[in-house]
Amino acid sequence: MLRVEHIGIAVNSLSTSVPLFEKLLNTPCYKQEEVTSEHVITAFFQQGESKIELLEATGPESAIAKFLDKKGEGMHHIAFEVADIYAEMKRLQEEGFVLLQEIPKKGADNKLICFLHPKHSNGVLIEICQDIK
Amino acid sequence: MLRVEHIGIAVNSLSTSVPLFEKLLNTPCYKQEEVTSEHVITAFFQQGESKIELLEATGPESAIAKFLDKKGEGMHHIAFEVADIYAEMKRLQEEGFVLLQEIPKKGADNKLICFLHPKHSNGVLIEICQDIK
Repeated sequence: MLRVEHIGIAVNSLSTSVPLFEKLLNTPCYKQEEVTSEHVITAFFQQGESKIELLEATGPESAIAKFLDKKGEGMHHIAFEVADIYAEMKRLQEEGFVLLQEIPKKGADNKLICFLHPKHSNGVLIEICQDIK
Repeated sequence: MLRVEHIGIAVNSLSTSVPLFEKLLNTPCYKQEEVTSEHVITAFFQQGESKIELLEATGPESAIAKFLDKKGEGMHHIAFEVADIYAEMKRLQEEGFVLLQEIPKKGADNKLICFLHPKHSNGVLIEICQDIK
């Protein structure tokens, strides 16, 4: 894994959380993007080589809506950039981690992504991601 | 804030989680350090310009022990490096955030640190930190 690409934070409402995180991080939100397949709207803040990604659910079928119902607002996942997502998925599977996708799916910010089951990583939801060339 | 300095993850046992995260991140744990004032042992992994910090409680008075009792293993906090911790504490307080320390305290990895109350940051426990010169 190359670096922390972003940290995902589940929020109830971007309209209140975007200005809050702009104050907290002292930097503007530089992009909002809806990911219809995931039923979320995302908002990004740059911090060094990493991003903070706020996630608001757009419907009850969203994994973010379910997370908010169960746990409330807070840290949702850590995403690591990898050089070759297919090779990394194979490596992780061989190490005993459980992938939530058999093939990478399209995420926000023009990326291929794959999640790992948090049961095998101390309750931490891990995403690996790679830019779509 | 300059960058994500580290992401703190609460774990029950470093002896099982250090080898697990070495496999997950494909990088060795480069340091373990006890912070007696916080009743924790920490273990660090480098990922780009950021670190993953695993935290094990050394006693029931530890904030990590309380977190584990309440929420179980998982992401505990995000730490941002700042250029001037005193100026940043003042700025955050003026923006309405609530500091958990009036003056910075000594944390792991030779740093001055200060936490913000998660109630005012969407349930996310935020740490700001600066190297002790």
